[in-house]
Amino acid sequence: MHPSVWAPEASSVKVVTGGCSVEMTKSRRGWWEAPGVTLEDGDEYAFSVDGGPFLPDPRSSRQPKGVHGPSVFVDHGKFNWTDEKWQPQPLASGLIYELHTGTFSPEGSFGGVAARLDYLKSLGVTHLELMPVNGFSGERGWGYDGVNLYAPHEAYGGPEGLKKLVDAAHEKGIAVLLDVVYNHLGPEGNYLGFFGPYFSKKYVSPWGDAVNFDGPFSDGVRAFFLDNARMWLEDYHVDGLRIDAVHAIFDQSALHFLEELVRTVRQVEMETGKHRFIIAESDLNDPRVVSTTEVGGYGFDAQWSDDFHHALHTLLTGERGGYYGDFGSLAHVAKALERNFVYEGNYSSFRKRSHGRPAWALPPSRFLGYIQTHDQVGNRARGERLGHICGRELQKIAAACVFLSPFVPMIFQGEEWSSDSPFLYFTDHSDEKLGESVCEGRRREFAAFGWNPEEIPDPQDETTFLRSRLDWPLEDTAEGKEMLEWYKSLSRFRNERPCLRDGCRENMHVEFDEKDLWLVMQKNDVLLACNFSKKEVSVEIGYETGDMELKLQSRPGVLVTKKSLTLPPEGVAVLERV
Amino acid sequence: MHPSVWAPEASSVKVVTGGCSVEMTKSRRGWWEAPGVTLEDGDEYAFSVDGGPFLPDPRSSRQPKGVHGPSVFVDHGKFNWTDEKWQPQPLASGLIYELHTGTFSPEGSFGGVAARLDYLKSLGVTHLELMPVNGFSGERGWGYDGVNLYAPHEAYGGPEGLKKLVDAAHEKGIAVLLDVVYNHLGPEGNYLGFFGPYFSKKYVSPWGDAVNFDGPFSDGVRAFFLDNARMWLEDYHVDGLRIDAVHAIFDQSALHFLEELVRTVRQVEMETGKHRFIIAESDLNDPRVVSTTEVGGYGFDAQWSDDFHHALHTLLTGERGGYYGDFGSLAHVAKALERNFVYEGNYSSFRKRSHGRPAWALPPSRFLGYIQTHDQVGNRARGERLGHICGRELQKIAAACVFLSPFVPMIFQGEEWSSDSPFLYFTDHSDEKLGESVCEGRRREFAAFGWNPEEIPDPQDETTFLRSRLDWPLEDTAEGKEMLEWYKSLSRFRNERPCLRDGCRENMHVEFDEKDLWLVMQKNDVLLACNFSKKEVSVEIGYETGDMELKLQSRPGVLVTKKSLTLPPEGVAVLERV
Repeated sequence: MHPSVWAPEASSVKVVTGGCSVEMTKSRRGWWEAPGVTLEDGDEYAFSVDGGPFLPDPRSSRQPKGVHGPSVFVDHGKFNWTDEKWQPQPLASGLIYELHTGTFSPEGSFGGVAARLDYLKSLGVTHLELMPVNGFSGERGWGYDGVNLYAPHEAYGGPEGLKKLVDAAHEKGIAVLLDVVYNHLGPEGNYLGFFGPYFSKKYVSPWGDAVNFDGPFSDGVRAFFLDNARMWLEDYHVDGLRIDAVHAIFDQSALHFLEELVRTVRQVEMETGKHRFIIAESDLNDPRVVSTTEVGGYGFDAQWSDDFHHALHTLLTGERGGYYGDFGSLAHVAKALERNFVYEGNYSSFRKRSHGRPAWALPPSRFLGYIQTHDQVGNRARGERLGHICGRELQKIAAACVFLSPFVPMIFQGEEWSSDSPFLYFTDHSDEKLGESVCEGRRREFAAFGWNPEEIPDPQDETTFLRSRLDWPLEDTAEGKEMLEWYKSLSRFRNERPCLRDGCRENMHVEFDEKDLWLVMQKNDVLLACNFSKKEVSVEIGYETGDMELKLQSRPGVLVTKKSLTLPPEGVAVLERV
Repeated sequence: MHPSVWAPEASSVKVVTGGCSVEMTKSRRGWWEAPGVTLEDGDEYAFSVDGGPFLPDPRSSRQPKGVHGPSVFVDHGKFNWTDEKWQPQPLASGLIYELHTGTFSPEGSFGGVAARLDYLKSLGVTHLELMPVNGFSGERGWGYDGVNLYAPHEAYGGPEGLKKLVDAAHEKGIAVLLDVVYNHLGPEGNYLGFFGPYFSKKYVSPWGDAVNFDGPFSDGVRAFFLDNARMWLEDYHVDGLRIDAVHAIFDQSALHFLEELVRTVRQVEMETGKHRFIIAESDLNDPRVVSTTEVGGYGFDAQWSDDFHHALHTLLTGERGGYYGDFGSLAHVAKALERNFVYEGNYSSFRKRSHGRPAWALPPSRFLGYIQTHDQVGNRARGERLGHICGRELQKIAAACVFLSPFVPMIFQGEEWSSDSPFLYFTDHSDEKLGESVCEGRRREFAAFGWNPEEIPDPQDETTFLRSRLDWPLEDTAEGKEMLEWYKSLSRFRNERPCLRDGCRENMHVEFDEKDLWLVMQKNDVLLACNFSKKEVSVEIGYETGDMELKLQSRPGVLVTKKSLTLPPEGVAVLERV
């Protein structure tokens, strides 16, 4: 491969490799080339723009010496894939498992994930969703501060490790989705600005400079991200992408970057003949995100649905701080189940404005349903998991709501046995000042909620990372085993019933009692009955339960009679008409 | 009327009127009221927030003492309207005439416009479009620096003057459209920030603070603009609005402000039973603006189409500076005629990026066609009109292209007789520093294009304004008369032929020769043939012209034979199959 780089406003660009520095020649559309230089797999190289320092390639496929080191060329053609016949299961019928490669296994690597695929399979997982694996500064991090967007993080096992994981997952019948961050770049090792106008002053992003998706030279910037998406799908055989915080992607173009991104994924789908998925994280409550392009949508397959999470979480925990203040009643849970968004144009006290737009006409399978995610666990001061806040019995109800919801269920690593490990915020910036400011920022943020700064773990401290590692083997405790069995039976139950995975809610009906704290959801022949209260409740619903059979119960004490249903305190039951 | 004002973050608000200052009480959603105070028509009043200075009402309906003075309450119910039976003609079948109230007539007022309605009627004008009439600092200005968005400019005749003009126009069968600016407020007399978070730091507008359409408290800010639109339509009987620079309206909400604005106009339409129009000025080349809401559009009736203007203007003048650099060939004119946008996703050298999205499937009647506007004349260093740049013969061709185009034709005051008055940029800020900086800014801007700063008229100088006044009576020169006759015959020709106003291009066909500089457009039985060159040309088109009759010619020398058509230098002919 001949080195090439996009630097549309540069006057000169040099490439250094094998101890030689070579002037590059300007080609078309801002690209520079060095036809006389050939890179072989494993060769180190770097670029210098206008006589500046030698810097890694913005599209570097490997950074073995970290974000500040030289790039290494990887010949993607060399990997021996064994997944020619692979096709992923439709997203709507699946179970997504979100994991962080560095903390999921003791190995902290792609290999560590690959070694546990059978376990995930036994749980019914159909789609793995990896938190960002792009290169970021240091060894440890969540990955959202990525700067080497084309290079799988070296500490996780680099390009080879990721390919092996994807190939192995496909072998086991599991699809791999990748979380990618296209709304900003990390604070350390971000050299993109040396090469071109990757950033814009027109908009203010919450995490630093907004990406230039619509200003001068934005075609090249857009191509940088579109080609990145294409690379993961083509060169790494990844089945889909989760696009981080689409609300921080600002673009006034007639063809919005997000629509173009979806179009790119569809193109790869057609070219390769393999199904692909694209999922958005969106805080906009805008149906446009998951609407089809025919009606002016961006055409995402699905989006994360925080409204459902927040409604359930506040009900279970009683928490009302920050955005949780907009939720808290059973009516919110019911509304999410029935209409996708709770905020669909109504006033949000937290946002101090009306929020969202009705999306009830959209299939619920365009929304992910979950009660734990890296954000909802990790963005807590002490990274506690739900079970440790509200207790395991309520967690079981939450899990039942997720698995029996009309949404695509997603669980977060360790949730299934209510792992004792927290999921904390951790970083490993080599820039000391940055490290300190990250820590201070975090402590200040939580001090505002009344926390003692000393109680907030230091993100830069390695133990913060190590504490976040999952406490395998999970069979250690009886409680862990019991929770795992509950998740497995829910997963199995869902999997065995097409009516729970049909992506529609025509035959769905929700009833609830705000005072007695019960909620009943019926979908076709299946009935989910939840008692969120600390008392036994007797539920009278509008139809007969006499011909229903008790299929699952989170704890003993469920009683089904001809006309009513008795639920034990903090108990949930799943019934089916026979 | 009891005074009320929106000040959502204020701790106290006082109203002063009739020499008394009264504490207001907080009502709902950030509104303050003074139920004990009653304002009668003509009463002066002002507000003080948190003990600050007394300031005009953001929704003041009259500012007789200027932008810094007290507000005056106007009882809109007092005006005697005589237009109950009025219905405007559909926009698509009309002729729009853009005018600036201060310079259109020697009176420089609404009354001066009203006195010339018969003249406009004789020209075939169906829709008057008034440049902004909202209150702005000083006496003279274009109006885009408005700060009293609810108060018709006092120097134009205030609320009473505008109502009389609208009523008189309706009497003559002419609709009135109003240019409104919702993307920023003017630099002098803008006290909105004292009352609430009207502005946002999330986006950077080209003209100062961006309006807060999607941040905290944005419901109230949106209401300010939506109610303003409603007021013009309801209280002033205005038939429609032209929304200035929609590309500078930043809004990430699921329901975009522009869609909500269109929805508001439609609501008034339904409530009042009178047709209303809403037109966008858009630099986005985004079909979403004029697409229907069913397909994700904002639903505007039409938008200004700069691509058609720029294509024609560059061809006629040879100018290639700035955004004109993207145009210049007959192919561009043909493309605009055939596909609405010239830039529909293709690369723009001026913007240094791809621009726009195809809109060819949209009816051409959703686009305004024009060759002169306040912007295209007034944003030139010396405000020259087209005829003074390229000569009157070429202007005649341009006019024929506009009137025979499939677009809704619009002309700019004085264009129809190629007035000798320029249309210059003028202001009248009382803040001296601001005045100086406006002048300096303007001179610097044009200095970049090689102008001697001394040659750029000082916007603050009253003579700059006076020179921009139309040189009535237009009958003064034979040239003026001839041009006027040409415009009138074009207008009449269009008006008499439904096929030219059917809003579609199914039976349209364009041919051109880039080398010989001719273009022929055929629509149903009508043929427009233009010779942009300085030589006589013989045009051979793909069909017979033998059965066609010469209907209009800009100058003698048109020859129609069975198979071809001879056009004199810089000449245009309109033929019709009989």
